[in-house]
Amino acid sequence: MSRPYPSCQGPPPPSLREIPAIGKRAPAPCACRRSVLQIHALIAYLPTHGQNVTGVFRSPQFHPCFRVSPVVRRGRISVTTTARTAANTLTATLNPRIRHSGFAALVTSAEDAAAMIGNGATVGMSGFTGSGYPKAVPTALAARAEAEHAEGRPFRVRVLTGASTGPELDGVLARADAIEFRTPFNTDPFLRDRINKGETDYVDMHLSQLAPMVWGGIYGDLDVAVVEISGITENGQLIPSASIGNNKTWLDRADRIILEVNSWQSAELEGMHDVYYGTRLPPNRVPIPLIRPDDRIGQPYFDVDFSKVVAVVETDAPDRNAPFTPPDENARLIAGHLIEFLEHEVKRGRLPRSLLPIQSGVGNVPNAVMTGLCDAPFDPMTAYTEVVQDGMLDMLDAGALRLASATAFSLSTDAAERFNSNAGAYRGKLILRPQEISNHPELVRRLGVIAMNGLIEADIYGNVNSTHVMGSRIQNGIGGSGDFARNSFMSIFLTPSTAKGGKISAIVPMAAHVDHISQDVQVIVTEQGLADLRGLAPKKRAAALIQNCAHPSYRPLLEDYFARAMRDSWGLHAPRILPEALSWHQRYIETGSMMP
Amino acid sequence: MSRPYPSCQGPPPPSLREIPAIGKRAPAPCACRRSVLQIHALIAYLPTHGQNVTGVFRSPQFHPCFRVSPVVRRGRISVTTTARTAANTLTATLNPRIRHSGFAALVTSAEDAAAMIGNGATVGMSGFTGSGYPKAVPTALAARAEAEHAEGRPFRVRVLTGASTGPELDGVLARADAIEFRTPFNTDPFLRDRINKGETDYVDMHLSQLAPMVWGGIYGDLDVAVVEISGITENGQLIPSASIGNNKTWLDRADRIILEVNSWQSAELEGMHDVYYGTRLPPNRVPIPLIRPDDRIGQPYFDVDFSKVVAVVETDAPDRNAPFTPPDENARLIAGHLIEFLEHEVKRGRLPRSLLPIQSGVGNVPNAVMTGLCDAPFDPMTAYTEVVQDGMLDMLDAGALRLASATAFSLSTDAAERFNSNAGAYRGKLILRPQEISNHPELVRRLGVIAMNGLIEADIYGNVNSTHVMGSRIQNGIGGSGDFARNSFMSIFLTPSTAKGGKISAIVPMAAHVDHISQDVQVIVTEQGLADLRGLAPKKRAAALIQNCAHPSYRPLLEDYFARAMRDSWGLHAPRILPEALSWHQRYIETGSMMP
Repeated sequence: MSRPYPSCQGPPPPSLREIPAIGKRAPAPCACRRSVLQIHALIAYLPTHGQNVTGVFRSPQFHPCFRVSPVVRRGRISVTTTARTAANTLTATLNPRIRHSGFAALVTSAEDAAAMIGNGATVGMSGFTGSGYPKAVPTALAARAEAEHAEGRPFRVRVLTGASTGPELDGVLARADAIEFRTPFNTDPFLRDRINKGETDYVDMHLSQLAPMVWGGIYGDLDVAVVEISGITENGQLIPSASIGNNKTWLDRADRIILEVNSWQSAELEGMHDVYYGTRLPPNRVPIPLIRPDDRIGQPYFDVDFSKVVAVVETDAPDRNAPFTPPDENARLIAGHLIEFLEHEVKRGRLPRSLLPIQSGVGNVPNAVMTGLCDAPFDPMTAYTEVVQDGMLDMLDAGALRLASATAFSLSTDAAERFNSNAGAYRGKLILRPQEISNHPELVRRLGVIAMNGLIEADIYGNVNSTHVMGSRIQNGIGGSGDFARNSFMSIFLTPSTAKGGKISAIVPMAAHVDHISQDVQVIVTEQGLADLRGLAPKKRAAALIQNCAHPSYRPLLEDYFARAMRDSWGLHAPRILPEALSWHQRYIETGSMMP
Repeated sequence: MSRPYPSCQGPPPPSLREIPAIGKRAPAPCACRRSVLQIHALIAYLPTHGQNVTGVFRSPQFHPCFRVSPVVRRGRISVTTTARTAANTLTATLNPRIRHSGFAALVTSAEDAAAMIGNGATVGMSGFTGSGYPKAVPTALAARAEAEHAEGRPFRVRVLTGASTGPELDGVLARADAIEFRTPFNTDPFLRDRINKGETDYVDMHLSQLAPMVWGGIYGDLDVAVVEISGITENGQLIPSASIGNNKTWLDRADRIILEVNSWQSAELEGMHDVYYGTRLPPNRVPIPLIRPDDRIGQPYFDVDFSKVVAVVETDAPDRNAPFTPPDENARLIAGHLIEFLEHEVKRGRLPRSLLPIQSGVGNVPNAVMTGLCDAPFDPMTAYTEVVQDGMLDMLDAGALRLASATAFSLSTDAAERFNSNAGAYRGKLILRPQEISNHPELVRRLGVIAMNGLIEADIYGNVNSTHVMGSRIQNGIGGSGDFARNSFMSIFLTPSTAKGGKISAIVPMAAHVDHISQDVQVIVTEQGLADLRGLAPKKRAAALIQNCAHPSYRPLLEDYFARAMRDSWGLHAPRILPEALSWHQRYIETGSMMP
């Protein structure tokens, strides 16, 4: 893969990798290296000492193979160096987000950075639920892929992220057919389409498990990390962006690192993160010392090996923030049933008055639950979750929530503006962590999280399909729902009882795919009502689900099926009529509706 | 529920609950209580001071409503007391397993103990994989149920255990139709039959989760605990038996406790257990301080509130130990493929030379793997598992295993004799823990367990059915496989490629029930070969599974189905032909074979 730095004859060409951070001990100089270091020192000098640099450039110490000419323009200095065989430009930025001049020296264009990613590379990109993903480099990479394809050359990469990203990453790359392989989660419609046409390989993973699997070598070497950050400190540490996701792992594991410094992200994010560096591969793992959602167990910055950083790209671009959709009547009904149930559990002494830390999936229904919780009669709560969305900001504002721990924001346009304009007000109330910590089974179990997730369909026994529409087309992915549902104190699934204007029932005879087995599904809530399945054997689960949760238009069909299954099934532990079990799905595929 | 102790007029009748342990402060005496305490003191006196007791009984301090007559016979003393209205017998034993005279005073018959369990009671019983389950009281309870049924009266109880028990518990109770509800795991054929006929409610649970759910009140009050132990210490602590299971929870949570002291169990079990008392309900949970399988974090005994103990029953009966079946050719082939794979992982540096702690399900194939591991070129290993079966004893004997941590034994008749005759030799190499610790997701993840479990069928994408034959009849249950598979470092499933003489394929188009979603299934091994599914997208998983694992007689059928699914499926992420997906199962139900 090409390097952007000029080569010269004689000794091997210097590489940007070999530029030490300012303040670090320089490697033993050779002719070329010395000039590199001197240019580097010059750039370091400029932002602090102003633009009166003429004298410096006249220093006779510069290696003769370079001609150096500084240009200062709009707060940015470019130093053009010409080697005997090539020309190139180093740019030092006066961008206040880049407080370390070693990194400033690496500022380059997205196109030049994208040029460092080769066909077939495995790339770890930042991004979680549409926040904190790189925006410029993937877009440039997509353009490059299109150009390569136009020339008849293959160009596809393997992309690992935190979770979903945005149109400037998955969207552009999918449209350019530049993604060969993708994990662990996606919501982009263009990429979804590629996957469901069988054109892109997609591994739908538990979000807590990707980092340890990459450390364990399961996904091979990580060639490049492309990570959005919100700034770089004087010490050369990285200030995370609006999501942390797997970034620690990408930075640690990648051979080369490309950073996008996004000035759109609030500068007040600094200090909100808690990056835990205590994870290990077995047999060297130790207890994670987190006992309450409030606990800080790490540091607010990423450490990074500067020698691996090959490019820094400046951006000033918003995250994928969609407009806020107010909760509809169904969402409000679901929230009402759930909150009534939680009140009941508190009254029976099975939950504390401040509940237990809540986890909430993303979407309209969870947002409605959050809104409902703003007025619920509980003591101030905490959240130990993946994502902070609008409803949680509302809860923090209302004092219903005293602290939210997550790995990412996922805000509407309005809420993002609200957060960015007043981020300091949330200091001490928000902690972002790596997703292997936000979703860690050890911590989910210890804290006793109340898990609230959505679903596509549940069968009458409460086996849940969260991912595969009609069993074969992936919608998004299991995401963190498996991390939370299996290990939570109480696992709740929320859904309207129908979809597509009533053409799809969320309660079906048999799920066409299973993500959450009945053991991990304790409560199901639809706008029709709530089924508390805890401690119930299959047939009693079925009765509760059909009665309390199914839509009235599908309930008689389910009752009929279940009654016949009770009579005709081969086994009567979990009665099933196999030839009919998936017929609703087949009918939908054939007619566009599950309704006969 | 009836109490066996005589009542008298005047003050409220004394109850066995009110007898304090010797050395504990007696409650303020009333007339009746005083006599009870005196009889108790007498019995306490006898085992230490011999049988010359005439003088004591003539003490004028005895309450006039009792007539007391001691009988000493075969190392056991019975004291018959007659109240004005009823007669009863207290028995003190000279059994050396009962080193606390307070408990000795409670020795009674299994029938009398069973009489303390009422119709509809929720009973927590000991027992895990056929070891350490109570044998006398459930048998007496079954007789009682039959007698009640003969009189036309209902009599059924709700039974919670550790895991599977034996014919003298699940078997006799199921035959007597005395089990209304059962959780979390069963292998008894009579009970299985009741469940699959729809006559008994069965909740198939993750084994690590029952204890916390009972603490959380999900299963209501626990009326009685019936727990087999191997002895009682001088301090009134209980020496666990050949399994620990959920016994700590049953003892702590039950209103009343019945103990079976089984002299058949090796006295050398004392000290092999590690009962951790640090579990809590959230929000009070803290890290579990176990870092290596060797760590002892608890105490060797159960604490028990003596005031809740209502009966002690003596037994001398073997566990359900079946004869050993030597591994067949398929089991040896499976073991061979697996060990070759593990060697490969070690060579690639993805596993240490001593591997990581192994977990192994129960059965012929896992036993073959253990046998194979005795000679494998690894450094001495550890096991962090549920069950120690024959193969693990072999590995300990061979030095291939240096330590096994589990919650239970499950030994063949021969191995049980070998262990019992030489249990001291395993001291320091075996630790038994509560099942919420042996299976705890926090510890399984931290230790990086290599999970090895069996299956009934896997679909072509690696979704595993471990429990429901043809989707509706439960075989055993998910047991601990979910605790381990989800949180392990590597989740391996082992199975012959066919069952029932080739009439059932273990690899099917779609699983008729799912216990382990594809994310939790990383390696599948049959006698045909091994499929390493890590990091593979669905279609590549299918290709690997069909090619490497399916039986040659089913492989062309699977290839044909998969090819047509690739062409005709609604979605091509995980192609499926819904009307055909379960047709193999239906064919088996109709014709007795999956083969067309």
